[in-house]
Amino acid sequence: MIHIYTGNGKGKTTAALGLIIRALGNQKRVCLIQFMKKNFAYGEIKFLSQQRNIDIFQFGTDKLIDPENPAKIDFEEAEKAYQKAEQVIKSNKYDLVVIDEINVAIAWKLLPKEKQFYLMELKSDAEIVMTGRYASKEAIEKADLVTEMREIKHYFQKGVQARKGIEF
Amino acid sequence: MIHIYTGNGKGKTTAALGLIIRALGNQKRVCLIQFMKKNFAYGEIKFLSQQRNIDIFQFGTDKLIDPENPAKIDFEEAEKAYQKAEQVIKSNKYDLVVIDEINVAIAWKLLPKEKQFYLMELKSDAEIVMTGRYASKEAIEKADLVTEMREIKHYFQKGVQARKGIEF
Repeated sequence: MIHIYTGNGKGKTTAALGLIIRALGNQKRVCLIQFMKKNFAYGEIKFLSQQRNIDIFQFGTDKLIDPENPAKIDFEEAEKAYQKAEQVIKSNKYDLVVIDEINVAIAWKLLPKEKQFYLMELKSDAEIVMTGRYASKEAIEKADLVTEMREIKHYFQKGVQARKGIEF
Repeated sequence: MIHIYTGNGKGKTTAALGLIIRALGNQKRVCLIQFMKKNFAYGEIKFLSQQRNIDIFQFGTDKLIDPENPAKIDFEEAEKAYQKAEQVIKSNKYDLVVIDEINVAIAWKLLPKEKQFYLMELKSDAEIVMTGRYASKEAIEKADLVTEMREIKHYFQKGVQARKGIEF
């Protein structure tokens, strides 16, 4: 099955992380591939990288991407992330494959949307989870489960800054 | 801050679980209190109960509740869960307190809604996360962050059954 978690609300990546620990608790093998998140300082990555039965691959740089004008390396890293995802899905080594922020990579045109569709059509036995805002209508049509995380209210609007342990 | 994850889509409890591992990865202390989920066979509970810095308290029974006609024990267990939540928040021992499915317990009238508001007004330093469908308008008003997990599409509609490792 293919899940998409999209929308402008908090909870997309964390929902995927929750699925990861549920799978690990059931002795499943998990792979987490992250687009645009090269930073092992994230609390969840520090935690998960110490667990058994999970492999983590991060791509991107530690710089913010300008969606209007991405750098050459942003395209290169997105392509590498895609190739890793393809290889991982085809390997049939994992029960759950989370491809974090791929929807944003597509929306920002770091990767052609056809590559996301190709991954969705690989007909793997693995559960595939794709996260990130801006999932396209076509991706939503191709997925089996789609949740829109809709922001009703966020404390960032009150001026609260991102906090270690909660936002990263 | 008080978070609410509500709505009819998949991802509410898993988003809370993701916050838990992010917090654990940052050496935070976590408490998970679950209404209506007395079942340590859940993959995520098996996994989390082996970790450091987390305490888990489950309430309820292993039987399904009839929302139209809950059993006496369902009310008693909801009251116990509430009392545990109050005690845990007041203890100031935790950085993150997840109160799973409390919104449903309120909607099904296992617990008066004033008790949820009371927990929200305790002004704790802990991050408080409340999950479950049917969060009331008043609870949403009192919260700092609210995400509605909106079901766009679910494979249950295609007749797929809940699967170990993914749904529990």
